[in-house]
Formats: sequence, structure tokens, C-alpha cells
Amino acid sequence: MDIKTYLSQKCLVVESALATYMLPEDGPLANHIKAMRYSLFAGGKRVRPILALATAEALHADTEALMPVACALECIHTYSLIHDDLPAMDNDDLRRGKPTNHVVFGEAEAILAGDGLLSFAFELLAHPDTGQAIAPTAQLQIIRAVAKAIGPIGMVGGQSLDLAAEGKKIPFAHLKLIHSYKTGALITAAVQSGALFGKATTDQYQALTRYGENIGLAFQIVDDLLDVEGSTEELGKTAGADVERNKATYPAFFGVDKTRIMAQDAIKDAIAALDGFDDKAEPLRALARYIYDRKK
Amino acid sequence: MDIKTYLSQKCLVVESALATYMLPEDGPLANHIKAMRYSLFAGGKRVRPILALATAEALHADTEALMPVACALECIHTYSLIHDDLPAMDNDDLRRGKPTNHVVFGEAEAILAGDGLLSFAFELLAHPDTGQAIAPTAQLQIIRAVAKAIGPIGMVGGQSLDLAAEGKKIPFAHLKLIHSYKTGALITAAVQSGALFGKATTDQYQALTRYGENIGLAFQIVDDLLDVEGSTEELGKTAGADVERNKATYPAFFGVDKTRIMAQDAIKDAIAALDGFDDKAEPLRALARYIYDRKK
Repeated sequence: MDIKTYLSQKCLVVESALATYMLPEDGPLANHIKAMRYSLFAGGKRVRPILALATAEALHADTEALMPVACALECIHTYSLIHDDLPAMDNDDLRRGKPTNHVVFGEAEAILAGDGLLSFAFELLAHPDTGQAIAPTAQLQIIRAVAKAIGPIGMVGGQSLDLAAEGKKIPFAHLKLIHSYKTGALITAAVQSGALFGKATTDQYQALTRYGENIGLAFQIVDDLLDVEGSTEELGKTAGADVERNKATYPAFFGVDKTRIMAQDAIKDAIAALDGFDDKAEPLRALARYIYDRKK
Repeated sequence: MDIKTYLSQKCLVVESALATYMLPEDGPLANHIKAMRYSLFAGGKRVRPILALATAEALHADTEALMPVACALECIHTYSLIHDDLPAMDNDDLRRGKPTNHVVFGEAEAILAGDGLLSFAFELLAHPDTGQAIAPTAQLQIIRAVAKAIGPIGMVGGQSLDLAAEGKKIPFAHLKLIHSYKTGALITAAVQSGALFGKATTDQYQALTRYGENIGLAFQIVDDLLDVEGSTEELGKTAGADVERNKATYPAFFGVDKTRIMAQDAIKDAIAALDGFDDKAEPLRALARYIYDRKK
């Protein structure tokens, strides 16, 4: 299948839904909403929403009512980027080739834009449209899975560990933990959201979770590789930032060649997890391969 | 009734539940969890959780399964204080008589402690214990009400407007808007959570919402008064900070005497909204009076 066409079509669908759900830039709150929209529509690849949709498709589900959940995942991802880029955090000026949120709107508004997107995401996760298509208990399961994945024992905790590890020698097991919390958890939760929406059996849910964990891992390893190999122009963010910050990365532990093999192995494991699925899971398989091949 | 005894008893119940739900301070995430716990257990009066519980009691509900929701409201309130105090925001060093979160844990960890508490709050709002006591659709309604109240058209939007208004002459209508978003929305949502949990009829829900809006208003007016009249020691935060920041406040618009009357009027309206309720609503009435009388 042509994954690039699939991705760009899904990307359009997600962006159009995001534009519908997100508040208009007018009234007294125009500046706050502008700040949220600035980062939300800054050219993201919408990987997490597409993963949720593709997972539900793999289960032969009609995905229309999953759209609020898919958009919520993108709001959460965007909030995490805005906060990670803050001067007190990674202090990045550039993201997807554009000035970061705090550079444009100031630090206070950037913090609030993140907070606003995170809160808004839960409005979307609890959207009545989703509740009409699946059992409300399943919708609550999705909310719990996402909230857990992005909280203290998840994405936020991972960022805390990542900051604490900067400039320190850490064992590889600790790097794995940071990655699984910081990047893996939300990617896995995106897949799980699609699985819960698509009424996966217990076996299917476990297989899809394994798929999600492995592409989450591959995603982070490839990110580490891109930081070493890519240019700032290609990446849309400052290249070599990890090295400069003395951050523990896969290439720093294993060298570039072995790191590549590790990424390929994670992709293989992800695809193997989908053995029991028919050709409706082809986009998930192609997505796994794409994660390895991706360049900005 | 003796509202002080009621409040201190409920406060203990809420704190004990919070201590149970909140993660233990160990493992690799100990520092992150410590930062969250530091502000969560810094002597808050637990007004929002108690409002939710007292509202459900006014509807003759057994409140045990409401506890995760009540605790979620306190996590959200705490997150908002941590972020509001940040150097980029109000830049406050003191809160409830203690150094603020960023003074103790640094700015990055304070941002993350807030983010972690906010995400964790939604795990609690979607807690299975609550879902066993009420219809899952009612639990989803609670999640939507809370998410909306604290998002862009709510608490976060209010803080954005508040920061933008600093040092500017704003009309009174704009001050009212800021207050209703920044403080009123979460207080009203706390009451609404109790109402939804307690299976309020449409009429009861509307009456309780009116109660919530009025005590929210009174709460903020009294806050403005305390900032003018209280000492730093009494307040546990820097007194006179509003004046120093040239912030629009009720006393600045109307003087202290008229402001007092406006607060009393809001309290009266709140109590009047409870006309159709029996003596199980006595704590709500007493709470309304207490808000006017409160001193740190």
C-alpha cells in the first residue's frame, strides 16, 4: 500500500476535524486561542491520531465517532511539545521549522496554551459523539488509558526523568524507562484508544498494545538517530541538540549502526504482533515501516 | 450547624483519600511525586472537594464513590496554583505560608508537577469506583463539565485574560468575566459534579448551578477584600500583591464598603437558590456564609 498517500489523506481528515473542534480566534480570549492554534496547526504529522484511527480500522470499525478522541491525542501531543520547549525545560527556539510557542506568545501564554490544550483534550475525550458509537464504559476506559499514559507514571514523569538525567551518566535501563514513559506511553495509548473503540478482544488488545509499545520504542530510537544524522533544516528543530545537552541516547550507548538494527528489530516485533490481523491492518504495518524510514 | 467542625471533618476525609490515591514517593519518579505532594498537602482548605461532597449530600446521596471526583477537583486546584505562582506568571514566592513549588523544586519541575496533577485528576475523574455508583453517562457528564470549566473558556482562559489585563484599565464587565472564568468556573463545576453524582433533576441542577456561580463570585470578591485588608501572615501569601501589580479588583472599582455589600448580596443569592432543598442542604448554606466570614 502507498503509506504516504494514506498518511496525507488521514492528515487532512484530522486537521479538518481539529479545525472544527478548536475554538475560533475571536472574542476576549482570541489571543489565548491563537496561541493554542499556532502550535496545533504548525505542520504536525498527526501520527498519534492516525494510529488511533488505523487501529480501529484494523478492527473493521467505522472511525467517524473516534475523531474527537483522535483530535484529543493531537492536542495532548501539542501541549507536551509547547511545555517541553519552554526556557525552563529544553529551551528550544525552533519546532517544525517555526519559532516555538513561547518565542511568539511569551512564556506565560505558552504555559497556558499548553494547559488549555490539555484540558480541552479531555473535553474531546469525553465527547458525546464518541459516547453514541461505543459503550460509555468503553469511553471511560479510553479516558483512563490516556490519562494514565500522559501523567506522573507516563509522559510527564518521563519528561521529569529526562530533565533530571541531563548531563549525567545513566544506565541503559534508565534510558529505556525514560523513553517508554516520555514517548512510548502516549503512542501506546493512541493504539489502545483505537483498540477500545474498535471493541478489540482481550487477545487483540494485548497484541495491539505490543504493536504500540514497539513502534513507540522505534519512534524514539529513530528520533535519537535523526538528531545525530539530520540537519536542522531537515528536522525543523535544532539538530545535534541531544549531543550538545550531553543527553543519553541510543547512538551514544551503542553507536549508529547497532542503533539502526535495534530500531529495525522493534519494527519487526511491532509487525509480528499483528500476525492475527487481516489486510485491514495493512496501514498499521505500513506505519511501522514508515516510522523507520521517516525523514521530516 | 457548626460549619468549622463540618469543614475540618470533611477536610480530614478528603486528605486521607488524597493520600491514598496519590502515588507514593519512591522509585525513579520520587522527586516528581514529591513535588506534586508538596503542593497537594500544603494545607489547602479543600473547599472544592467539600463543595462537591456537600452538594451530593444535599441530594441525599451516599458520597463514598464521589471521593475520586472530589480529590480530582483538589488536584486541579493545586495544579492551577502551582502554575499561577510561576515566575513567568504571578511570580509568587509564598503560598499558604510556605515557599511556592518552583522555589523548592525549580521551575521545570513545578511546571511538570502541575501538568502531572492535571493529568492525574482525569484518571481520578474516570475512576471505576465512581462508575460503579452512578451511570457511566453521568460520569462522562462530570468529566465534560470539569474539563470545560478548567479549559480555554474557563480557568485557563481566565488566567490568560488576567495576565493580559495587568496594569491596564479594564471595564468592570471585563473584570467580572475574568473572575467568572478564573475562579467561578471550577467552583461551579465542583457543585455541578456533586449535582450530577447525586442525580439532581433539571430544576435542582439549575438551582445548584446558580448557588455555585454565586459562591464563586463571593469567593473572588472576598479574595480581593482580603488582599487589601489582610496581612501577609494572615493570608499565607503576599498581601497587597494586587495593588502592587496594579490589578483591577472589586475594591479598586467600588471601594471596600460597597464591595462588602456586593459579597453579601452574592451570598444571599446563593442561599436563596437553595430554597427548594431540605436541611440536608444546611452545610451548603453554612458554606456560603463561611466564604464571606473566612479568614486564613
